[in-house]
Amino acid sequence: MPLGGLGEVGRNMTLLEYEGKILIIDMGFRMPSEDMPGIDYIIPDISYLKGKEKNVLGVVFTHGHYDHIGAVPYFMNKLGNPPMFASKLTRGIILKRQDDFSNQPQLNISPIKNGSKIILGVFKIEFFRMNHNIPDNMGLFIETPVGNILHTSDFKFDASPVNDLPTDLQKLKSFGEKGVLLLMSDSTGAEEEGHSLSEKEIQINLEKIFSRTHGRIVAATFSSLINRVQQLITLSEKYGRKVAIEGFSMKNNVEICKNLGYIQTKPGTIISSKEMRNYSNSQITLLCTGAQGEGSAALMRIANKDHKYMQFKKGDTVIFSSSVIPGNERSVQILKDDILKQGVKVYHYKMMDIHAGGHAQQEELKELFRIIKPKFSMPIHGQYSMLVAHAELAKSMGIPEENIAVIENGQIICMSKEKLTIAKKRIPSNYIMVDGLGVGDVGEIVIRDRQMLARDGMFVIVAIIDKQTKQIKGSPDIISRGFVYLREAKPLLAETRKKVIEIVNKPTNQTQKTTVLTPTQTLTPKLLPLQKKKKKQEKKDELKEEIRNKISKFLFKKTQRRPIVLPVIIEV
Amino acid sequence: MPLGGLGEVGRNMTLLEYEGKILIIDMGFRMPSEDMPGIDYIIPDISYLKGKEKNVLGVVFTHGHYDHIGAVPYFMNKLGNPPMFASKLTRGIILKRQDDFSNQPQLNISPIKNGSKIILGVFKIEFFRMNHNIPDNMGLFIETPVGNILHTSDFKFDASPVNDLPTDLQKLKSFGEKGVLLLMSDSTGAEEEGHSLSEKEIQINLEKIFSRTHGRIVAATFSSLINRVQQLITLSEKYGRKVAIEGFSMKNNVEICKNLGYIQTKPGTIISSKEMRNYSNSQITLLCTGAQGEGSAALMRIANKDHKYMQFKKGDTVIFSSSVIPGNERSVQILKDDILKQGVKVYHYKMMDIHAGGHAQQEELKELFRIIKPKFSMPIHGQYSMLVAHAELAKSMGIPEENIAVIENGQIICMSKEKLTIAKKRIPSNYIMVDGLGVGDVGEIVIRDRQMLARDGMFVIVAIIDKQTKQIKGSPDIISRGFVYLREAKPLLAETRKKVIEIVNKPTNQTQKTTVLTPTQTLTPKLLPLQKKKKKQEKKDELKEEIRNKISKFLFKKTQRRPIVLPVIIEV
Repeated sequence: MPLGGLGEVGRNMTLLEYEGKILIIDMGFRMPSEDMPGIDYIIPDISYLKGKEKNVLGVVFTHGHYDHIGAVPYFMNKLGNPPMFASKLTRGIILKRQDDFSNQPQLNISPIKNGSKIILGVFKIEFFRMNHNIPDNMGLFIETPVGNILHTSDFKFDASPVNDLPTDLQKLKSFGEKGVLLLMSDSTGAEEEGHSLSEKEIQINLEKIFSRTHGRIVAATFSSLINRVQQLITLSEKYGRKVAIEGFSMKNNVEICKNLGYIQTKPGTIISSKEMRNYSNSQITLLCTGAQGEGSAALMRIANKDHKYMQFKKGDTVIFSSSVIPGNERSVQILKDDILKQGVKVYHYKMMDIHAGGHAQQEELKELFRIIKPKFSMPIHGQYSMLVAHAELAKSMGIPEENIAVIENGQIICMSKEKLTIAKKRIPSNYIMVDGLGVGDVGEIVIRDRQMLARDGMFVIVAIIDKQTKQIKGSPDIISRGFVYLREAKPLLAETRKKVIEIVNKPTNQTQKTTVLTPTQTLTPKLLPLQKKKKKQEKKDELKEEIRNKISKFLFKKTQRRPIVLPVIIEV
Repeated sequence: MPLGGLGEVGRNMTLLEYEGKILIIDMGFRMPSEDMPGIDYIIPDISYLKGKEKNVLGVVFTHGHYDHIGAVPYFMNKLGNPPMFASKLTRGIILKRQDDFSNQPQLNISPIKNGSKIILGVFKIEFFRMNHNIPDNMGLFIETPVGNILHTSDFKFDASPVNDLPTDLQKLKSFGEKGVLLLMSDSTGAEEEGHSLSEKEIQINLEKIFSRTHGRIVAATFSSLINRVQQLITLSEKYGRKVAIEGFSMKNNVEICKNLGYIQTKPGTIISSKEMRNYSNSQITLLCTGAQGEGSAALMRIANKDHKYMQFKKGDTVIFSSSVIPGNERSVQILKDDILKQGVKVYHYKMMDIHAGGHAQQEELKELFRIIKPKFSMPIHGQYSMLVAHAELAKSMGIPEENIAVIENGQIICMSKEKLTIAKKRIPSNYIMVDGLGVGDVGEIVIRDRQMLARDGMFVIVAIIDKQTKQIKGSPDIISRGFVYLREAKPLLAETRKKVIEIVNKPTNQTQKTTVLTPTQTLTPKLLPLQKKKKKQEKKDELKEEIRNKISKFLFKKTQRRPIVLPVIIEV
């Protein structure tokens, strides 16, 4: 049962259930899309586990990227802090992140490594290393009473990785020989032809830049690309450069990795940004976050001349050693342009292979199918189009269509030795949005309001009405933001006020009031106070609705914009 | 003087000035970026032309894409409706668009064609055809007293175009031989290596899809890609398919082009969408807009089952015959996934070359420099990084750095026979935003408010205060949108109300009031009514400010969100 990660990139979390006992694989978050303004990230919906906390055998983690571990702080209290299993680096990253949250239980994470075997209920799990772009990434070989499941984690086959060992194809073969009933494999690269670039090739291209550059080098990448960070440090050392590090997450990750031995530096290589001034240009590498054009990241602050210790000057070189996440293209373009305008040389991944994805492409996936020879295939991790492309590959490798399950979050695959069926029933798999301290309190309604507010702003009308005469007192107050520039819209506001006065004071409103006093009305039994109050409220709501409708229409006619119109009626 | 199109994609408009007389090239708009919510598009700032209307000799247009003609309806009244010159198709598109606007003058557009020569003041202009992805695209050879200028328009070199003649290299050579002082050339493709794909190759790949497909074909592309539209119609005819057309702009463009002879169809090929039901699946092509994942476009409506005559079913095939505009990746991905989930086969440009850009890539630009041999180079049309890449190419082709002008909108190039200089002075080149009926009335402040509203919503507090006692009456009203889901935030709202009451009723407010009555105060001269009113207003503003600050802080502490807090104080 996938709770996340299918039909999306990120938020990976899957449940395996056997006779009511549940094994959890990963607990990740994802970033929101542009149509979810203000949202920090989205986590899986774990309401299926409510009441089943005692049946959770444990949580196994594949690797330390946030799309696989980022939801941990939101779930551990709710799930009664079940036992967790993670490799050393993954464990370090999970624990470090806990510091940012309050009221967290003491986590119970058993460290595992390549070859570790654990038993959780009926599930016998062997962890084995797989190449990705972070060290200590683990695939899972899970023996179950029904058959064996192989989960690849995010992976690529890399014969010459950096900061890691080459793919252990022998190990994979041995799993294949034991027999794999279900292969759950990474789809992120399934739409890409050929073979992913080896990190070795990236290093060769990065070295070309280092060898020809005499000015300062600013290298921006994802802070989670630990192996890339290592490459940049190693190259800096080779070319006599010190390395300053900027960006909160970059500093954090380098610290964790250095402490645990996953990043190696010579003594004295790392300097503080302040110390840069003690070195000549050719001796400086600045390693930083912000390759996605994020507003508050180090690279943007430098480009905007907002950085304390670093300003660009002619002769500097910036390396964007990362791909652009879909949706960030414009921000990256603007950042790149701003840097170029300062006379800086820019290298990015479209000009040279200075970034490689971390995911198996079509040729690698085919090789995987050849080695593992699974009976059933379940594409995991990726947009729906990637799952479909992955399924096409599986079919081309001889797996019959009925043995391939392309499903969505919340769907259930029921597996027997002979058959793979997709259950009709679904379990909850909503987006749970995290916004500031709120988890799940921002739902569709709030998001829709934000979208509307963003488009045309809002328009509040405060009308004070005389309790007795039902006539408006004075001129209504108008408060508006994001709609028009108010100082230049005085005629429009004056007209709107007039319109509101007309609506409130119009004869029918008076008539309605007076109907209460007609003879027929007096024949009806006297209203109880509660009914009276209710009736009064209803009238007020009707008037509000009328103002909202008429003023919305009026403003649209005048401007072709649709601000959210909010009438406030106060009776005095 | 570029007013738009430099450091951005779109909004192309350039002024050439000689002894005060001005020639205008193109008047385009551009689409807003995601951080400008609600904006329809952005047009150039023509305030430089204010007071110089009589000096405008005329406007020449290169081609009919909206980033070259879209600003016409906003400018013609302001500029006193100067004479315009455009090829037949460009003229048709400009005139058709005028129908959507009211209060427009009768435009005076002289039709020109390949080889047409006109004289506007000192400027002698020859129009010559250049390949792009719309027919009737014209480059400009402009003779001036200083020297000859060659403006390429958007262009690519295509030896086997569809619906157009191959590039006339002889003509270009003849201009080169006449001598070109300044080459203004299209930079949009300058970052791409190699040669752009010929439309012929696209046709071959599209034909592969047509020949193997038996179900219905839905082909989505830009409505402005007239030559692609022609290809899809021709292929449909070849494979016995009728063509229905969906999408307002697609219908419009096909109509204009058919009327003017730029799209050729056999009698009976075009059918209405309603008529589709009279044909078998293999006889139907639906040509539509929405390849960018636009919310209200035809393709999205079909995918969402919102379309009157068309719903997807298994066996259908969708062709995305267009690239993805940066910023639209996510919407396209979501749309593609939605279509795939309905069992439809999807082809997009990453899987097959079924789209070609319309812009010269590096090898074509080099060829251009070889043919034209300009003394000065000015890269136009494109993001700053494209202009820089273009300038690098120019340098590699032997043009000295000081003869290349990479400039931004609003900068001025002063050209003599010998020298190219960039003036220190700049002319206005702001973003003029169009939002509904408003042109330029949405500025930075409104946009910033929209961004803030989008992020965390808004929070209006209405407090009624007793004129005499300065105490709050009843409990303050709260109206909020986009902040939290109100029904689930009752405790927060109750606490906020309490907080507001405290702020209003706190002793210091009372003290301030009573100080007016102290003996020292009575010694001061009596305040005039106006001063009194001012003083009262000041106090009210102070109180508002205090509520805004304290409640903002309080809400942030409670939620880590920053809604726009708007206090309303009513004294009764």
